[in-house]
Amino acid sequence: ISGIGSNGQVRSISVEALKPSDTFPRRHNSATPEEQSKMAEICGFPTIDALIDATVPKSIRLNDMKFSKFDEGLTEAQMLDHMQKLAAKNKVYKSFIGMGYYDTFVPPVILRNIMENPGWYTQYTPYQAEISQGRLESLLNYQTMITDLTGLPMSNASLLDEGTAAAEAMAMCNNIEKGKKKTFVIASNCHPQTIDICQTRADGFNIKVVVSDVKDIDYSSKDVCGVLVQYPGTEGEVLDYEGFIKNAHANGAKVVMASDLLALTMLKPPGELGADIVVGSAQRFGVPMGYGGPHAAFLATSQEYKRMMPGRIIGVSVDSSGKPALRMAMQTREQHIRRDKATSNICTAQALLANMAAMYAVYHGPEGLKTIAQRVHGLAGAFAAGLKKLGTVEVQELPFFDTVKVKCADSKAIADAAIKSEMNLRIVDKNTITVAFDETTTLEDVDKLFQVFAGGKPVGFTAESLAPEVDNKIPSGLVRKSPFLTHPIFNTYHTEHELLRYLHRLQAKDLSLCHSMIPLGSCTMKLNATTEMMPVTFPNFANMHPFAPTDQSEGFQEMFTDLGDLLCTITGFDSFSLQPNAGASGEYAGLMVIRAYHKARGDHHRNVCIIPVSAHGTNPASAAMCGMKIVSVGTDAKGNINIEELRKAAEANKENLAALMVTYPSTHGVYEEGIDEICKIIHDNGGQVYMDGANMNAQVGLTSPGFIGADVCHLNLHKTFCIPHGGGGPGMGPIGVKKHLAPFLPSHPVVPTGGLPAPDQADPLGTISAAPWGSALILPISYTYIAMMGSKGLTDASKIAILNANYMAKRLEDYYPVLFRGVNGTCAHEFIIDLRGFKNTAGIEPEDVAKRLMDYGFHAPTMSWPVPGTLMIEPTESESKAELDRFCDALISIREEIALIEKGKADLHNNVLKSAPHPPSLLMADTWTKPYSREYAAFPAPWLKTAKFWPTTGRVDNVYGDRNLICTLLPATQEEEPAAATA
Amino acid sequence: ISGIGSNGQVRSISVEALKPSDTFPRRHNSATPEEQSKMAEICGFPTIDALIDATVPKSIRLNDMKFSKFDEGLTEAQMLDHMQKLAAKNKVYKSFIGMGYYDTFVPPVILRNIMENPGWYTQYTPYQAEISQGRLESLLNYQTMITDLTGLPMSNASLLDEGTAAAEAMAMCNNIEKGKKKTFVIASNCHPQTIDICQTRADGFNIKVVVSDVKDIDYSSKDVCGVLVQYPGTEGEVLDYEGFIKNAHANGAKVVMASDLLALTMLKPPGELGADIVVGSAQRFGVPMGYGGPHAAFLATSQEYKRMMPGRIIGVSVDSSGKPALRMAMQTREQHIRRDKATSNICTAQALLANMAAMYAVYHGPEGLKTIAQRVHGLAGAFAAGLKKLGTVEVQELPFFDTVKVKCADSKAIADAAIKSEMNLRIVDKNTITVAFDETTTLEDVDKLFQVFAGGKPVGFTAESLAPEVDNKIPSGLVRKSPFLTHPIFNTYHTEHELLRYLHRLQAKDLSLCHSMIPLGSCTMKLNATTEMMPVTFPNFANMHPFAPTDQSEGFQEMFTDLGDLLCTITGFDSFSLQPNAGASGEYAGLMVIRAYHKARGDHHRNVCIIPVSAHGTNPASAAMCGMKIVSVGTDAKGNINIEELRKAAEANKENLAALMVTYPSTHGVYEEGIDEICKIIHDNGGQVYMDGANMNAQVGLTSPGFIGADVCHLNLHKTFCIPHGGGGPGMGPIGVKKHLAPFLPSHPVVPTGGLPAPDQADPLGTISAAPWGSALILPISYTYIAMMGSKGLTDASKIAILNANYMAKRLEDYYPVLFRGVNGTCAHEFIIDLRGFKNTAGIEPEDVAKRLMDYGFHAPTMSWPVPGTLMIEPTESESKAELDRFCDALISIREEIALIEKGKADLHNNVLKSAPHPPSLLMADTWTKPYSREYAAFPAPWLKTAKFWPTTGRVDNVYGDRNLICTLLPATQEEEPAAATA
Ligand SMILES: Cc1ncc(COP(=O)(O)O)c(C=O)c1O
Ligand SMILES: Cc1ncc(COP(=O)(O)O)c(C=O)c1O
Ligand SMILES: O=C([O-])O
Repeated sequence: ISGIGSNGQVRSISVEALKPSDTFPRRHNSATPEEQSKMAEICGFPTIDALIDATVPKSIRLNDMKFSKFDEGLTEAQMLDHMQKLAAKNKVYKSFIGMGYYDTFVPPVILRNIMENPGWYTQYTPYQAEISQGRLESLLNYQTMITDLTGLPMSNASLLDEGTAAAEAMAMCNNIEKGKKKTFVIASNCHPQTIDICQTRADGFNIKVVVSDVKDIDYSSKDVCGVLVQYPGTEGEVLDYEGFIKNAHANGAKVVMASDLLALTMLKPPGELGADIVVGSAQRFGVPMGYGGPHAAFLATSQEYKRMMPGRIIGVSVDSSGKPALRMAMQTREQHIRRDKATSNICTAQALLANMAAMYAVYHGPEGLKTIAQRVHGLAGAFAAGLKKLGTVEVQELPFFDTVKVKCADSKAIADAAIKSEMNLRIVDKNTITVAFDETTTLEDVDKLFQVFAGGKPVGFTAESLAPEVDNKIPSGLVRKSPFLTHPIFNTYHTEHELLRYLHRLQAKDLSLCHSMIPLGSCTMKLNATTEMMPVTFPNFANMHPFAPTDQSEGFQEMFTDLGDLLCTITGFDSFSLQPNAGASGEYAGLMVIRAYHKARGDHHRNVCIIPVSAHGTNPASAAMCGMKIVSVGTDAKGNINIEELRKAAEANKENLAALMVTYPSTHGVYEEGIDEICKIIHDNGGQVYMDGANMNAQVGLTSPGFIGADVCHLNLHKTFCIPHGGGGPGMGPIGVKKHLAPFLPSHPVVPTGGLPAPDQADPLGTISAAPWGSALILPISYTYIAMMGSKGLTDASKIAILNANYMAKRLEDYYPVLFRGVNGTCAHEFIIDLRGFKNTAGIEPEDVAKRLMDYGFHAPTMSWPVPGTLMIEPTESESKAELDRFCDALISIREEIALIEKGKADLHNNVLKSAPHPPSLLMADTWTKPYSREYAAFPAPWLKTAKFWPTTGRVDNVYGDRNLICTLLPATQEEEPAAATA
Repeated sequence: ISGIGSNGQVRSISVEALKPSDTFPRRHNSATPEEQSKMAEICGFPTIDALIDATVPKSIRLNDMKFSKFDEGLTEAQMLDHMQKLAAKNKVYKSFIGMGYYDTFVPPVILRNIMENPGWYTQYTPYQAEISQGRLESLLNYQTMITDLTGLPMSNASLLDEGTAAAEAMAMCNNIEKGKKKTFVIASNCHPQTIDICQTRADGFNIKVVVSDVKDIDYSSKDVCGVLVQYPGTEGEVLDYEGFIKNAHANGAKVVMASDLLALTMLKPPGELGADIVVGSAQRFGVPMGYGGPHAAFLATSQEYKRMMPGRIIGVSVDSSGKPALRMAMQTREQHIRRDKATSNICTAQALLANMAAMYAVYHGPEGLKTIAQRVHGLAGAFAAGLKKLGTVEVQELPFFDTVKVKCADSKAIADAAIKSEMNLRIVDKNTITVAFDETTTLEDVDKLFQVFAGGKPVGFTAESLAPEVDNKIPSGLVRKSPFLTHPIFNTYHTEHELLRYLHRLQAKDLSLCHSMIPLGSCTMKLNATTEMMPVTFPNFANMHPFAPTDQSEGFQEMFTDLGDLLCTITGFDSFSLQPNAGASGEYAGLMVIRAYHKARGDHHRNVCIIPVSAHGTNPASAAMCGMKIVSVGTDAKGNINIEELRKAAEANKENLAALMVTYPSTHGVYEEGIDEICKIIHDNGGQVYMDGANMNAQVGLTSPGFIGADVCHLNLHKTFCIPHGGGGPGMGPIGVKKHLAPFLPSHPVVPTGGLPAPDQADPLGTISAAPWGSALILPISYTYIAMMGSKGLTDASKIAILNANYMAKRLEDYYPVLFRGVNGTCAHEFIIDLRGFKNTAGIEPEDVAKRLMDYGFHAPTMSWPVPGTLMIEPTESESKAELDRFCDALISIREEIALIEKGKADLHNNVLKSAPHPPSLLMADTWTKPYSREYAAFPAPWLKTAKFWPTTGRVDNVYGDRNLICTLLPATQEEEPAAATA
């Protein structure tokens, strides 16, 4: 036996080699160094850095991003360890706080197969209906659930939170009255955050908000467009609003009701009481509290006002073969069409959470939901009965559903005693406490509460023993009699196998990042790494009430502080607010900061907002919501803002200039050279620069909004910072500001917040979101992304994102005109290819190319925005060269298909593009009348032979659906014949 | 406003209504009470209980199962809470124990998308190749990885653990020598558990095991069939075996090497050293230690011995259109064919874990793996260098890869000091310690070790500072020079997006329980509920070393104890061993218990095992492995054991009778009335009754093996007790025994175990598995299932499983003959339909029906077992009536398709069954030559229009593949033309 005893050579090991080797950036950033060089060379540059130098204007180039924490980046293992430790710093006490947030048990089958499943969470908003029928069905279930429970016939597919949903309803009332009645009354029985959000929002709309007791509302001014009441009220009381609504209507005011879905399984629905609009949160239907969100809010209304509904709405239509098929309805209401005339700026909403809530209803069914509600009501009743027996406090004799109101000598003392038992109560005022019950409350919890209220004295009974004494606290006139969730979908999938299969059936219809790149310009569909997603479902993050005492949420607080610091370093700002729940919400919040700043300086008149025509539709919509006057400026042939026009506009509006809204790099995918000059012009004319951070993926580590000269910016964390799109949300739109604006960052009426880091003084603009830190539960995603990438990894990401875009542009430029490039001929992280010519040469529209891409297994790039007739392609840094090549190959192949039409070799109307997509039902039909072959239709590229994603319907008819609007599930029998159903 | 103040009625709430309403049994058991009544009526019984009473023989009927814990069943929320608390009782210290188990970082993308993904874990063993191409590819990757790293050309697709793999190799050596050389030498540098398992196993084979130092092996007897050595050795030493192997071969002995995959990225592979067989564990390739398992073991060998390889082997073949397609190769080796002549009893293996390990290699690639290995080696080197500097102990000057051996004055004192720092070392003996490093070790960990070894004195250096002094401890002659993992699959998917999509591409090819019922008779493919699966990936369960001091594993120990109790109650036994890792392993263990019992009584001669011809092939194979002589008994026309024949056999073998192996209900799906008599006959003749518990799903709560009269029984936890099949494993096969057998239950050389509850005295038969409690990590699945169902839920499950089978039999009996029923015309939880007639009437074989079922979206039932020419259908309790009906509809529709052939309306050879399955490539081909329509081929049932699962290949040719055996990935260029490749 040889080799015994070492004959190895002495060698020196580098310390690097002993450090963890599996670093995260190489998993996130696609291209290897060799590939980077090769691709740069193809683009005409010796190195990637040379390409970047030629692309990012020198004047704004930064070279020294450095983090005070996580600068080198943690490995995934280190990160998970860190997140476990952060989570352990949160103390998850039993919550009886209520106020719109209730603990709930997420059915594990939904947790694992939706919330923890990239097949669901990496989907994009279902703009491409033919490869989105799964989530479209689920969202239609959601809308049906909302209409059934509220008793109103129309619902949207979610809003950001209950508070902003109420504010949207207020705007609807204002719009219904065409802006002629400027008073909106809010009942004092609404949640405080709802009231504050509406008050803040009213400001921009120039609406006067009156907060009043329900009993004391005064309509005599004739100026009341609407009233908002809550049902049940924030302190638990269940009022019968039937007479109240009649009276409001008689006085020409619309009635908005904020309500609770679980309560509505037992209570007469608002629609039957006569309400015009109902809003609320679907959180307690199986969506974790998550320290504030994300959750799906809802808004339902009557047929009359359906076209005024904000947000996305799913509707039934037909496909090219006449079969029922779903798609987003009435898109012409949205901001990209209506811009500053839009009725709302909402864009990204809460699709993933709406899906979870809908599936919760599918799983429990109407009977299951009613059982849960009755149990919650019974526990509240047992609690009230017990307190009366104890006699230590005074139980208010009110009708209630789940919340018991109590008068006492010292609410704080009781709440503190409860905290000692790891329970949180709501202190309403010095002498008032409420105790809200939910699905997770047990008889043992009620007994623990008795002990708290008994103040240590022995309790001679148990919740269980009180059961026989409990009386129903719902007034008989308000007991729900109408059925709900009668559709088979809500009455079939009640075992785990049935639900599992339903979820997977729907999932299989939808293309997501699990299948292929989704190169949506302006949307940054990058990797949503598993390590980033895992903490989202750690129980110690997921199960916290947003209004829990902050000393219980140290883990969250530490993360907020560090995230604030990191984002400040990345953006060059001084302070951040994490409150806005989406990009558009951030825009609105940022403009409101500017507005507050001007006001604080006495510049009440500054209300002009300059917006380039190329801006995203949410920009003008948000500005309009702040009461600003929009002045448009054009772009030049190169796609850059016309600086002279801008200068003139700024100077002309010098006295009243409030702000400029600018996206950088531009929505055309170009680093405008004049951006610093643009900022200077605005500042010189007394305005503030609002930067839309949607394109931050081209800035991180290379430049920054703060460095460029912006005063405020929102970040779409669901773009640059890895929060997945969830099929249309959740998102997060935190805003960063320069020091002078920090005092105005939003606060919150229940848990005061402000800038992170906190400015010296605060003068908050009001409240933007229902939760103090917005959708706190998804912040770990962005936090871990930044912490694992480190400063260098992030900078590399920006570089590779730019390289990838330029590489694709290079590969495609011989086939499609590439619009807009920078001074050195490069594009930023995205680029636009022009399809307009094909309309004349081949009768081909961008939609035809988009639909044909589905046959190749791809989701289309952003279509006809910002330039009609084009596609905007954004590959992101996470896509490998192989994937980029595959996508280019598909587009090149499609170009050849177009050429066949141009040459007359394919029919102008009956061709493989016009008939796309080709679902199996079409491809395997017995008759085949197309002039091309089935095989070519289905397998036009080699990779499709290995794995093919199948569109499940033919092309969906948008016009038909909008003309025959159906936004709830078709009765089961009609599913085969929607035409008949609408006839 | 009306309704202020309660006008509700006083009512009495039942306490029941205040208890948690979302109980688990209604999610697991499919049929609602109304459906149960309806189905029972269709079966001709007024109630489900009447059906059960008529089905289960009165004499064995139990009515009073009651648990001392969890009797009422926990809700899912309570269960998760309980499991969190159990997990928290485990203390997960950093492990330096080694011995075949190393901490590893499971790439989160693999964790979430394989281990936590029902799309992967609920798959069945890939017997139906056309709907299993995804996992077949992954397992082929595994085999390729094993052959590349070991340097031997043939690998199987996993074995149960390293120890049993070594035992299988020993059996191979014995078989190679045709049983003529009966000595097997095991080097003392093997892991102790490996040695013990081989010694135990050798017993049954009548092999003499000699444990010897590698240097001292004596071949002079000429009786040595093989030698087992370890590389690196258990204490870390890396020996060069080249000369050793030459010598062994010269002496006519085969050489088996137990090795380590990570080490093999740096070490010359065993194949190049001349080894004949290599075994080992793939655990450290991204599979959590899990307190012992499940992990995939491997076995590789030369072309010469490939047909002797145990276990499942994946091979390349072609499909009906001549395209390459994968399937299980050489199935004729398996037990269902060879029975007691089988070379091994292994059946369920570790497919899921093999897939994880293979994907770990795919994700890291050869360079990544090498980097990890070098880092581990470097850290071990730095540690050795530091210890030498410290001088407190004596570092052994040996070549090593990852394990450093140290002589010291008091190993226990050092190990105890390490434990204080939350680190576990291996105590080899009083004066010897080893310290093993792994992927998760950090420089900081090494520094902490220095502190321990410095005994509190200051350490003047750090691991980092030592790097330059570290020398390579691998002898230069043993440095690996040959490349490995050169196939593109191992060099492409290195970013998370690429791997994510690869995983999903494979997943999409495979039918699993996420799609439809998999009604495999004898396999019990029931719901694997998410709540049951969640604890499996709790870090405090997943990351424990199996040899960690038991006072660190209190959570596990509590669970083992309670599970032992619960299983005793369920089975009527007195003690359980959790060690066997699959059903077959349980059979072997159980028979070895019987063998040990007879021996202990002096009955050394008792070696006859009676086995009915209808028994599963593993039964005779297991008995053969125990050195037993098999005596077969036949069944009567009703499928029951021929009792008179049995009596005669027992009496004829009275003197030597060891055991009867019997499955109950019978493999024919019938509760044999004479089972108590059968047991009595065996006992009267001195034998013990071994019951195969595969059909426990028809017993739980209704009867029990112990009550019936069995002495031993294994449970397939992966059948009745919800461990998912994972595409061919993991499984668990614990055995329960009556009191008189409890002393003989297996123990373990490192962590002594025995019966749960422990018998008064112990006389263990030896060691069955490498880990003390087998695959401990998946025990939470069965534990939570039992605890959530409670005694009533479990009993209902059995009843509904029986009801479901009878309902289906009723629906199908007019279309297919149903074979075998009990005295009252009912079947048990499964039933057999007879297809034999169709051979004559229509030329149709069971395989044609199985493949046509794929077109309907279903996995075939168990085919041609236990009766050739039949299908055995087992619906389980988790399938809804709607799903049962859908499956029946499919079979009825297929019966009509057969009728068309019978009537001459369809061609005998060219028909929709013979050509099944129909993949898209066929259905959308430009030419269509079938006499039936494409649409009918693809969409023969209405539900397929809503959602269709697509087979990805045409029918796979088994014979071609076995004739042209290829069991590794085809070179990338050849993938399109396998025929050429093998020519
Ligand atoms: C440039 C730009 N600004 C703003 C938004 C709005 O962001 P959100 O959808 O998060 O509200 C988008 C969304 O795509 C965008 O592309
Ligand atoms: C009746 C019977 N016995 C034993 C076994 C073997 O179990 P395992 O595959 O877990 O080794 C099986 C497997 O299907 C079986 O059906
Ligand atoms: O493979 C079997 O499970 O029989």
